[in-house]
Amino acid sequence: MIPLAAGAGVADALLSLFLILLAAKIGDEIFKRLGQPTLIGEILAGVLVGPAVLGLVEPSEVIDVFAELGVVFILFWVGLETRIHDLLGVGRSATLVGVLGVIVPFAGGYAIAAARGEDAATSLFFAAALVATSVGITSAVLIGLGALETRSGRTILGAAVVDDILAMLVVAVASAIAVGGSASIAELVVVGAMALAFVAFFALGGTRFMRRYPGVLKAPRFSESPLLPAVILCLGLAAVAAEIGLAAIIGAFLAGMMVAETKEQHPIEEEVAPLYAFFAPFFFASIGLQLDLGSYARVPVIGVITLVTVVAVVTKVVGAYAGARGLSRPEALFVAVGMVPRGEVGIIVAGIGIEAGALGDEAFAIIVGMAVLTTVVVPPVLRALAARLPDIPSAAPAPR
Amino acid sequence: MIPLAAGAGVADALLSLFLILLAAKIGDEIFKRLGQPTLIGEILAGVLVGPAVLGLVEPSEVIDVFAELGVVFILFWVGLETRIHDLLGVGRSATLVGVLGVIVPFAGGYAIAAARGEDAATSLFFAAALVATSVGITSAVLIGLGALETRSGRTILGAAVVDDILAMLVVAVASAIAVGGSASIAELVVVGAMALAFVAFFALGGTRFMRRYPGVLKAPRFSESPLLPAVILCLGLAAVAAEIGLAAIIGAFLAGMMVAETKEQHPIEEEVAPLYAFFAPFFFASIGLQLDLGSYARVPVIGVITLVTVVAVVTKVVGAYAGARGLSRPEALFVAVGMVPRGEVGIIVAGIGIEAGALGDEAFAIIVGMAVLTTVVVPPVLRALAARLPDIPSAAPAPR
Repeated sequence: MIPLAAGAGVADALLSLFLILLAAKIGDEIFKRLGQPTLIGEILAGVLVGPAVLGLVEPSEVIDVFAELGVVFILFWVGLETRIHDLLGVGRSATLVGVLGVIVPFAGGYAIAAARGEDAATSLFFAAALVATSVGITSAVLIGLGALETRSGRTILGAAVVDDILAMLVVAVASAIAVGGSASIAELVVVGAMALAFVAFFALGGTRFMRRYPGVLKAPRFSESPLLPAVILCLGLAAVAAEIGLAAIIGAFLAGMMVAETKEQHPIEEEVAPLYAFFAPFFFASIGLQLDLGSYARVPVIGVITLVTVVAVVTKVVGAYAGARGLSRPEALFVAVGMVPRGEVGIIVAGIGIEAGALGDEAFAIIVGMAVLTTVVVPPVLRALAARLPDIPSAAPAPR
Repeated sequence: MIPLAAGAGVADALLSLFLILLAAKIGDEIFKRLGQPTLIGEILAGVLVGPAVLGLVEPSEVIDVFAELGVVFILFWVGLETRIHDLLGVGRSATLVGVLGVIVPFAGGYAIAAARGEDAATSLFFAAALVATSVGITSAVLIGLGALETRSGRTILGAAVVDDILAMLVVAVASAIAVGGSASIAELVVVGAMALAFVAFFALGGTRFMRRYPGVLKAPRFSESPLLPAVILCLGLAAVAAEIGLAAIIGAFLAGMMVAETKEQHPIEEEVAPLYAFFAPFFFASIGLQLDLGSYARVPVIGVITLVTVVAVVTKVVGAYAGARGLSRPEALFVAVGMVPRGEVGIIVAGIGIEAGALGDEAFAIIVGMAVLTTVVVPPVLRALAARLPDIPSAAPAPR
């Protein structure tokens, strides 16, 4: 047939997007009825339609972009709900949670890989994949629980920013060693300083600018509707963050915090909600799409995945809990568990490791298994822990 | 640098999407201030950032998919504003407009190509590219004018459906001749019957089903918010339409008409509006992205483009006007001019012609030039003609 749509590629992409959205919606509704976090249903929907089970949808660049926009709009939403001064209020404990929550899993990951006899570059990548928290997953859970504006919720967000910068540095070191054999300290300092400068510039300067000109997104000379200016700001900061080596979602989060200081915060929330509802399922489902059960046919791999997952959970909980000084015990536990999901970030780091020649297919399969397991296990636990938070509201805004 | 975002491809895609959205928004605002239809500003923004001028953004599959979703949401919106019984009310004149509006441009296009000494397959493709109206462009103009619910607006929509089915058949014949040397009548009948059956099934059966179960999109056992079920229906029908060789937007239009019969029409309109606002600029800008001024360096090509554009305009106006019986003269003129834009459809047909080996680069450049010119010229004329319509409302719902 001759698809007048726009070439066969576009027609097939439409079909894939339709299948993912349909499966994710069904998974979402089933898990809602089970009283479980719906994002697990959406991840499992991705497992179902993806290569692991039915093979209806293959991972592709188009799906990657939709997934990325999904997590970008999640973090933009989170930014919209976050005031910079609240975030600065938890700055010290968030930094400690981020730093210790990176160091301990890094040590654990490196120890496992070294014990299996891997070389330094491979061990570094393996450790790096265990380091990075998926703030997208945790954020979606926090939104669902209405816990974004609790002290522990804010601590998780701040820690996730620190975590992301540190993870980027670890990946930079691992890449440098895998490619050239050694890492240049000077280069690392530049990379780290650029990331910090980017975050500080928009978190402090950007929000101050918006407080001074709170009507800028809907200035009569500028735009009729505030939605597109806000979305353009979000995509722009996301793209810049990605280009300088940070996660795009850090840019989206900063953009959200800037918009939160304007007069248009609430109308923009209403208009962003449908974009969130449309794109987020691609983010969750695409994590499931990465899973290929064929890789797990050999029993020893399953044993290793279990071991790695346990290490990933325990090291992150211990590290983050140790960092969560100044919070009550229920809050510290909530923060520590909230940092556990590795989600798409672990998978992305493993992908970079494959491209650098430092990781093989088996290591990738192990990391994907760990990433999916940590992501699926955490939400119900967080939900149970949220009830014990001192400042959890009874109802909060949610995008859907 | 190591983009933690999700691989360099995704980071670059984010940057392209950002640049397109930013440029389109600026173009939109400039043309709003000039009192001109904003979609022209968005098309020219695509010309500016694309290969023709700055070269910041290259056409890609990701952008194609975003553009396709743009026109899908435009037509979904149009469907939401269209009641099937109103469309059936203009059925006879719409069919005539569609049929004559295909035959006359087809004859004109074939004559030009044959006069230039092209063979049958090439002449057929050239004629096919002149045939198909871009209902996406016309719809966006109708939305902007609040003219969707006028008798002439509905006639254009109905005629565009007929036009699309006929164009698909012409392309099928042209492809068959280009590849195999002849077209099988039996196969053409099957293709045409399938397309008609698809349209009739959802236009008549689908809307009847929705009238009978108007609460289905928000049934308590089915879904909390009606947005995703509606969008899934839209993507599903779009994908099926594309897979059977029709334009995806026909499916989206049918889905919109079905949703228009439910109780959720208005909440869905509100929630679809941000999706429209986000995706539509990619549709307009991507038309401009196709333009490559390098192809027009030789003066004779510009002469041919002018000639072909004049033929494309005159034949469509004459054919459609002749078909618009039973309408007043201002209405018939509005309908005839409304059918003129070839937009993305002409470009897509030309692309199929290149893949089939029937069109060369020069023919493609000529068709792209004609498509962009017919698209840019029409909106201001339509706006002027709209004032003379007997049933134009003073204000109408618009997605932004």
